[in-house]
Amino acid sequence: MTPIRLAAPVVLPCDPGCSVLRDAVVDVDADGRIAHVGPRATAPPSTAPVTELPGALLPGLVNSHAHTPMIALRGMGGDLPLLPWLQDVMWPAEGRLEAGDVRVAMTSGCVELLRTGCTTSVEMYFFTDAVIDAVTAVGSRVVLTPGVIAAPGWDRIGTWEQMRDDVSARIDANGLRSGPGDRIELGYGPHAAYTLPPEALASVAEHARARDALLHIHVAEAPDEDRAQRASHGTVPALLDDVGALGGRVLAAHGVHLSDADIALLAARGAAVAHCPGSNAKLAAGIARVTALRRAGVRVGLGTDGPASGDDLDLWAEARLAGLLARVSSGDAAALTAAELLLMATRDGAAAIGRDDLGAVAPGCWADLVHVDLDDPVFVAPEDDAQLLSNLVWAGGSRLVRDVWVAGEQVLAGGEPTRVDRRAATVALRAAAARLRA
Amino acid sequence: MTPIRLAAPVVLPCDPGCSVLRDAVVDVDADGRIAHVGPRATAPPSTAPVTELPGALLPGLVNSHAHTPMIALRGMGGDLPLLPWLQDVMWPAEGRLEAGDVRVAMTSGCVELLRTGCTTSVEMYFFTDAVIDAVTAVGSRVVLTPGVIAAPGWDRIGTWEQMRDDVSARIDANGLRSGPGDRIELGYGPHAAYTLPPEALASVAEHARARDALLHIHVAEAPDEDRAQRASHGTVPALLDDVGALGGRVLAAHGVHLSDADIALLAARGAAVAHCPGSNAKLAAGIARVTALRRAGVRVGLGTDGPASGDDLDLWAEARLAGLLARVSSGDAAALTAAELLLMATRDGAAAIGRDDLGAVAPGCWADLVHVDLDDPVFVAPEDDAQLLSNLVWAGGSRLVRDVWVAGEQVLAGGEPTRVDRRAATVALRAAAARLRA
Repeated sequence: MTPIRLAAPVVLPCDPGCSVLRDAVVDVDADGRIAHVGPRATAPPSTAPVTELPGALLPGLVNSHAHTPMIALRGMGGDLPLLPWLQDVMWPAEGRLEAGDVRVAMTSGCVELLRTGCTTSVEMYFFTDAVIDAVTAVGSRVVLTPGVIAAPGWDRIGTWEQMRDDVSARIDANGLRSGPGDRIELGYGPHAAYTLPPEALASVAEHARARDALLHIHVAEAPDEDRAQRASHGTVPALLDDVGALGGRVLAAHGVHLSDADIALLAARGAAVAHCPGSNAKLAAGIARVTALRRAGVRVGLGTDGPASGDDLDLWAEARLAGLLARVSSGDAAALTAAELLLMATRDGAAAIGRDDLGAVAPGCWADLVHVDLDDPVFVAPEDDAQLLSNLVWAGGSRLVRDVWVAGEQVLAGGEPTRVDRRAATVALRAAAARLRA
Repeated sequence: MTPIRLAAPVVLPCDPGCSVLRDAVVDVDADGRIAHVGPRATAPPSTAPVTELPGALLPGLVNSHAHTPMIALRGMGGDLPLLPWLQDVMWPAEGRLEAGDVRVAMTSGCVELLRTGCTTSVEMYFFTDAVIDAVTAVGSRVVLTPGVIAAPGWDRIGTWEQMRDDVSARIDANGLRSGPGDRIELGYGPHAAYTLPPEALASVAEHARARDALLHIHVAEAPDEDRAQRASHGTVPALLDDVGALGGRVLAAHGVHLSDADIALLAARGAAVAHCPGSNAKLAAGIARVTALRRAGVRVGLGTDGPASGDDLDLWAEARLAGLLARVSSGDAAALTAAELLLMATRDGAAAIGRDDLGAVAPGCWADLVHVDLDDPVFVAPEDDAQLLSNLVWAGGSRLVRDVWVAGEQVLAGGEPTRVDRRAATVALRAAAARLRA
């Protein structure tokens, strides 16, 4: 591609101090990586064409825990308690899912992610080729950790050994990252300690470590799910550590019910947590101890979870909810600031999956960028840095997103995807949803 | 005005059962009230022009507790703890407020309310003429309860007796409701038991009862605000009852820290509660006991509170948050359904202020109507009633709002206000905000 220069009145690089740059430029090189970011006045000379943007540029958001293809089941049985919802509605519907449904649902889901400013999602699902096809078609970015599970209904996909070996074979054949702009990263998605025997957890973790791949697993989400595991090992983090699964790149999804010792253990092993406040609240699972996790040095990203339970794929809403829940559960009205929430949705999410080339506008990072409207009345004092951040995070969010780039390629323009037809994607999604309800 | 007929593939009348009508019409009479609602096939003959709408029609939302003019202060000091935020940032800024600022801020706020589908807001603020001017200019609807307070800084407005008498004189001169379509209702806004002496509460309540006016008061919002009152009377509801302030039309804003006895007392006196989950969470005030209040028979509406703390004026976001907090605080994943949340935002909010002519699409009600996009991919199964409601409430919300009518007059068309220029309103808002920050 041709190098480009994007210029904007505001750039939020999402550096550790959450700077606000005024009248700044972002240079993107021929590979789709960021070459330079800084004020226009001190920018290096460039022959690249300059695109003048009227709003604010920031890095693409990182959704650190999702099952996006479940968008086809959004709202089914949504007002049932957890167990009847799972057993009577979700599992039978998922039992009818085929690769074509997943391709269609993931396509629509990737468009929804882009339209809310999210460029990378960490996905645990099945039908790997269908998911990759959809991401490739839309042009978004995925860290895909195909599910590895030994539970009723999922044996139609294969045994846990087959699921594990399929991932290993793909990585061994194509490398950990592939596609234009490294858009596809593969990892392992052992579902949970209560759906896999300990030897499976140990073996999958060994495969992951040998390939420096992400291990993405549900941990301590709901109070009752892991009684047997707690009886035998005390807690799920302790079990995972006992079987050697906490080394390497580990991302624990949810992490709602964690003791102080669990948190210390995750911190000591360098494991990260994907915080999903919306799903955890809607399913009445609980409120994760985010401030305690952060204080202990655990990297914490934000996730929407699947849209069957979490409903939308709006990471801005999750950020705001994370702040509200942290404040009301701690009694501290300054528990998480707007700047901290913005960083959780960007650079902290990237850090949680061990990617220092995502989640920030910095030289060497992929040019995954989001352009948001600054003209909206939500910004009552756009010239004030603190108020701009506050208004963006607490009152603005996803509806302000106008344009999105992934690896330097514009994949959303004026709210519409550049590579696929949004209306056709919706028609296909509704047809799949109708079949799954039948 | 000329009678009109609106036709839509979906009408949500917000009747007690939260029906979903398919291919239905809404007839509006010459006064701006609803004459008929029902399926097109069984509609009475009509000579009115028919407007065919592609989406869903529902009643305008009722925001039951707001201080909308504080939009000019949105995001100021937003990450400070409560007391420094109030004392060092809010009160000094509010001390600089003049009528012109309030007019400008209320104008922008009313536009934001309409754009999110809210037609009625219950407002407690000062500068009564400025608030009425703004509402009249935009064409929205307000139940305005001017503040009555005896607290430092506010004496520049007058004594509490003067504030009370100003409201009484206005009602005695113009009636309780006035303006085209009865758009302006007046009531009394005694601020709180900790900012007014008991004799003031008693007297304001007497003035309100004598005029059948709404008494709108902050009750038990934060843990520490009313220590002296609790020491003398046990609880704030008990104090209000002791001074005879719980008779008549009473709306208690927040109601976060209520005992079982408080809830029983509110129920026995027929007092209602305006639940403001976003503000209560952000300021770490707590989580109101919404399911207990509803179970006791207390009418519960939803409020955004002022946008200085609550940030936006999006009642859909409050509804969703109310559901999430009720679920996670009770451990019951079915605590509030999508239908219940939609009704809380509409007919329950109207009931909480004693208005049976708002919050529903029913004969005799004012034709305050909202048209939302059904074409959005958020609706994966628009032909399924339960899933449509679930997707609307849990995943859709304010961004789907396209058109709004108040008393039969279209005041928002394609997202833009019909009576005022939104861009000019934003420019004026920012100028006021800049002056207040100085």
